[in-house]
Amino acid sequence: MGSASRKTFLPLDPVTFSNESKAFKALLSPAMLPESAPYCPEPLQDILEDVSNCIIPGLTHWQSPNFFAYFHANASTAGFLGEMLCSGFNVVGFNWISSPTATELESIVLDWMGKMLKLPSSFLFSRTGGGVLHGSTCEAAVCVLAATRDKALKELGGWENITKLAVYAADQTHFTFQKAAKLAGIPPSNFRLIETSFSTGFSLSPENLRFAIEDDIKSGLVPLFLCATIGTTPSGAVDPIAELGKVAMEFKRWLHIDAAYAGSGCICPELRHYLDGLLNPHKWFLTNMDCCCLWIKEPKLLVDSLSTDPEILRNNASKSKAVVDYKDWQIALSRRFRALKLWVVIRRHGPANLMYHIRSDIAMAKRFEAQKVRIGLLQVEAKVEEEDLNCKLVEAINSSGRAFMSHAVLSGIYVIRCAIGTTLTQQHHVDALWKLIQDKAQSLLM
Amino acid sequence: MGSASRKTFLPLDPVTFSNESKAFKALLSPAMLPESAPYCPEPLQDILEDVSNCIIPGLTHWQSPNFFAYFHANASTAGFLGEMLCSGFNVVGFNWISSPTATELESIVLDWMGKMLKLPSSFLFSRTGGGVLHGSTCEAAVCVLAATRDKALKELGGWENITKLAVYAADQTHFTFQKAAKLAGIPPSNFRLIETSFSTGFSLSPENLRFAIEDDIKSGLVPLFLCATIGTTPSGAVDPIAELGKVAMEFKRWLHIDAAYAGSGCICPELRHYLDGLLNPHKWFLTNMDCCCLWIKEPKLLVDSLSTDPEILRNNASKSKAVVDYKDWQIALSRRFRALKLWVVIRRHGPANLMYHIRSDIAMAKRFEAQKVRIGLLQVEAKVEEEDLNCKLVEAINSSGRAFMSHAVLSGIYVIRCAIGTTLTQQHHVDALWKLIQDKAQSLLM
Repeated sequence: MGSASRKTFLPLDPVTFSNESKAFKALLSPAMLPESAPYCPEPLQDILEDVSNCIIPGLTHWQSPNFFAYFHANASTAGFLGEMLCSGFNVVGFNWISSPTATELESIVLDWMGKMLKLPSSFLFSRTGGGVLHGSTCEAAVCVLAATRDKALKELGGWENITKLAVYAADQTHFTFQKAAKLAGIPPSNFRLIETSFSTGFSLSPENLRFAIEDDIKSGLVPLFLCATIGTTPSGAVDPIAELGKVAMEFKRWLHIDAAYAGSGCICPELRHYLDGLLNPHKWFLTNMDCCCLWIKEPKLLVDSLSTDPEILRNNASKSKAVVDYKDWQIALSRRFRALKLWVVIRRHGPANLMYHIRSDIAMAKRFEAQKVRIGLLQVEAKVEEEDLNCKLVEAINSSGRAFMSHAVLSGIYVIRCAIGTTLTQQHHVDALWKLIQDKAQSLLM
Repeated sequence: MGSASRKTFLPLDPVTFSNESKAFKALLSPAMLPESAPYCPEPLQDILEDVSNCIIPGLTHWQSPNFFAYFHANASTAGFLGEMLCSGFNVVGFNWISSPTATELESIVLDWMGKMLKLPSSFLFSRTGGGVLHGSTCEAAVCVLAATRDKALKELGGWENITKLAVYAADQTHFTFQKAAKLAGIPPSNFRLIETSFSTGFSLSPENLRFAIEDDIKSGLVPLFLCATIGTTPSGAVDPIAELGKVAMEFKRWLHIDAAYAGSGCICPELRHYLDGLLNPHKWFLTNMDCCCLWIKEPKLLVDSLSTDPEILRNNASKSKAVVDYKDWQIALSRRFRALKLWVVIRRHGPANLMYHIRSDIAMAKRFEAQKVRIGLLQVEAKVEEEDLNCKLVEAINSSGRAFMSHAVLSGIYVIRCAIGTTLTQQHHVDALWKLIQDKAQSLLM
């Protein structure tokens, strides 16, 4: 990537906030910000000074090159420009007529992304599928769950069958999927979290999925939906999509693929075999928050479930059925012009530099791994005192303010995750992290 | 409001896009934008030229002073600056530890807003309630519906009772509320749309609500939730909150108040009697998209329903229960730092100028009304040919490109809505609209 993309607008290097070891009292005290809004307008200067003096010191700096926690919400100048344009136009493209090019650009960009990922063409508008931008994975999951739920309830003959619907995921699947299923009215007791293990790299076993489905059918339940993942949050596991797809096909169930962060990597040919649709460009794709791509083979199912046709929005374009009305592809009516942001990001970097960016992050992660650390899995032996040690190690790293990491528990083992991929992270930051980990570990062992 | 707030970044005056009368073919043809992403990075200049030449001509300009349709998504320089800061920091404050001051500022700003609106103190963090920023009304509605649903299902003894839950609204209630109830798994057949009429100004009758509730109880259903509205979308009706509240209290049901656009007006003392919790600052409050305030008296109910406690997010601050983790107050895990935007808007304008802005819009609307036009209800006699005439009149106005309006149907009468309130609208724009309406009406009658 060009040096322009590695620049940012905040001097965040090298400190990142952490309050892990401090008291959790209010950082913004009434002495700093009044308890009621000041009645008269204030000078911009005063507001920006408060941003610097009160807000910034208490932010966890996700854009710091020393941020290795959770996921990489990497921003870029192009993404920022896209947000400025979006916020400047401030159009609300809930249907085609309410901002035609906002809708059309979104369809074009989703096809661009789909082609970059080499998605089957059945997911593209140029065929019979299509894509939409949501704000988050969970929102997208609620929508597709509602679509499948409504289709199933229609087939089963009534809403009272909602208590029979069952949903499947791995114990490594992102926890928001379980929340989404509950939001959509699927009984939590019908949510199957299929156990994974170290032996399969924590990926979902098609065999175990089949057992769970068959069990449920025997008990009179109706299997509805499977969520597979490319790049799970705790361990980065990749579920075997092709095999899981066969099981889903066999039982005629919906297969949803959550590739929220790792999907971006699939624009690189050498990583593409992982993906055969959901991806968050606001993770690892230099697209500022928020931006989540959802592709669907039969958009009609989504529209059947989510469409509204109030008189106040009726118009000749919608009546003609020749246009896309994105309000019927999402939860909300209102929507921001996020497509502009993603479009600027893709054009300003080009797939060429986006691949460079992803490969550079992977190269840094591989070097880190080679330094005797399993990526995302800094594993010390599984004895209790040592688990406790790993926990203390994360706290020591974070309270130093020099880096920020997070953890997971895999098969009962407390592991330290290392997510490498902020826009500003360079090799020397990763090397410094490794040194910091060694120093803190040594202090703890002394 | 100062002149600074009336300036914008686009020369939109006086033309606004409309394609009502044209064919609904793709405005962005492959000749304009390629069907696949260009492989190499492109110069910024080229991208911005395409924005000017391809995107802008096909946008419906919500920021045009001649935009009188739907609702006023009014932007401001302060709102834009807030978005820039939000996008620049690009932090993801899903829990307190992941960006402490982002969470704390949100709580402070929601209390500021609550106090400006003179909400009962039980809705404020300074007491036992609290507020949260969502992206949209529908998202907020799904969350509160899920919270009440889960509380009711617990009381009723199991998820199978979901098919007994009934939800109430007026036929004027925003249609997304019905969508939200379906998304949350409430059977659509248990959604009661209570009829309103011209005689009560299209407001919801507490008597009719009581009849509907009593009927449902007799049929073995369990009334769950009432959505009342301050400022309905089709007619601007204000439901009698106090009386509806009494009915809700009597049956111990949840009362949700949707004041998405009109709530902003309630910062003015003379308008406050309307409001005794939901408001969208991205409508009529100079806050760029997206920003929706939700207050709740018992946040615990929301958290009980929406909380997730995955190992990867466990931290000492959350364990202490001394902090707010906003992930448990909304659908998504990820969230943008919207509070910064609303905070900048409030401080930069002050309640003083925000009231000036709202009063100035109301004054323009009153003058428009005095020009023999009922606000939001340009009513010609209710004969069929004249309804058809009103419809043709909107099409004629919109296809002129000189203004953009929308319509509603009230008690079977097609009416033209006039929403006055974009940031740039001045008296002469409203006067020009009235002249345009007269001209187009005369041409149609000739």
